[in-house]
Amino acid sequence: MLRRIDHVGIACRSLEAAIEKYTSVFGLSMVSQEVNEEQGVKEAMLAVSAAPLGSYVQLLEPLGDDTPVGKFLARRGEGIHHVGYAVANVTQALAEIEAGGLVRLIDSRPRHGSMGASIAFLHPADLGGVLTELVQPRLEP
Amino acid sequence: MLRRIDHVGIACRSLEAAIEKYTSVFGLSMVSQEVNEEQGVKEAMLAVSAAPLGSYVQLLEPLGDDTPVGKFLARRGEGIHHVGYAVANVTQALAEIEAGGLVRLIDSRPRHGSMGASIAFLHPADLGGVLTELVQPRLEP
Repeated sequence: MLRRIDHVGIACRSLEAAIEKYTSVFGLSMVSQEVNEEQGVKEAMLAVSAAPLGSYVQLLEPLGDDTPVGKFLARRGEGIHHVGYAVANVTQALAEIEAGGLVRLIDSRPRHGSMGASIAFLHPADLGGVLTELVQPRLEP
Repeated sequence: MLRRIDHVGIACRSLEAAIEKYTSVFGLSMVSQEVNEEQGVKEAMLAVSAAPLGSYVQLLEPLGDDTPVGKFLARRGEGIHHVGYAVANVTQALAEIEAGGLVRLIDSRPRHGSMGASIAFLHPADLGGVLTELVQPRLEP
């Protein structure tokens, strides 16, 4: 079901400072920067490996304190927020996981993610505290 | 410098239960299970994508409360502990990062990691709270 680790999502207080750090230290290139109002974040995708089988560092700055990432920062401070795995078909993956009955879905239907991807989150309480995202990249082969 | 996301390291209380969960829910295959006394963990590697350009879920159960992962569990509970990026040459990568002067090294020389890899950790305080590992897999092309 999972094809690769698509990204790690990292919560940060300053997107600008985090981008500067990751590009300076590791030489990563930023391939996308966008605001996702629905998720309450402004974010940047930095490519670790190239598309179409890309893997990314996703830097997330909350749009406000009362957003999921804002609450995460208040509770735990900066750090890894979630992990995203690439799948060929996120709708099908959700159906399989729901049928399995072991993990609750946060999103029963896909929603819009970074760079045109279709994404869905799984419940961290059923995955050992790990907020887990399924990602069907826009041009997934 | 970074080639791909090699793994996410996940701290868990029961390695057995975590392996069961990840294999049942996502159909991942366990490719390695070992004890690393130096790091104070027993661990399992579950393949998300295949070697030699593999990516893995690394499940980590502490060997005792007074180990890094044991302290992490006491402080933060189960969840994502670190991220590991594949590099072609970990010694060279450490030298470049040290020369950059932006991030302190936890390991100034590589040590033994999972599946025969050479690894080194970078200081989370200099990377927005993210414990970051560099991994030179044993058969990295």
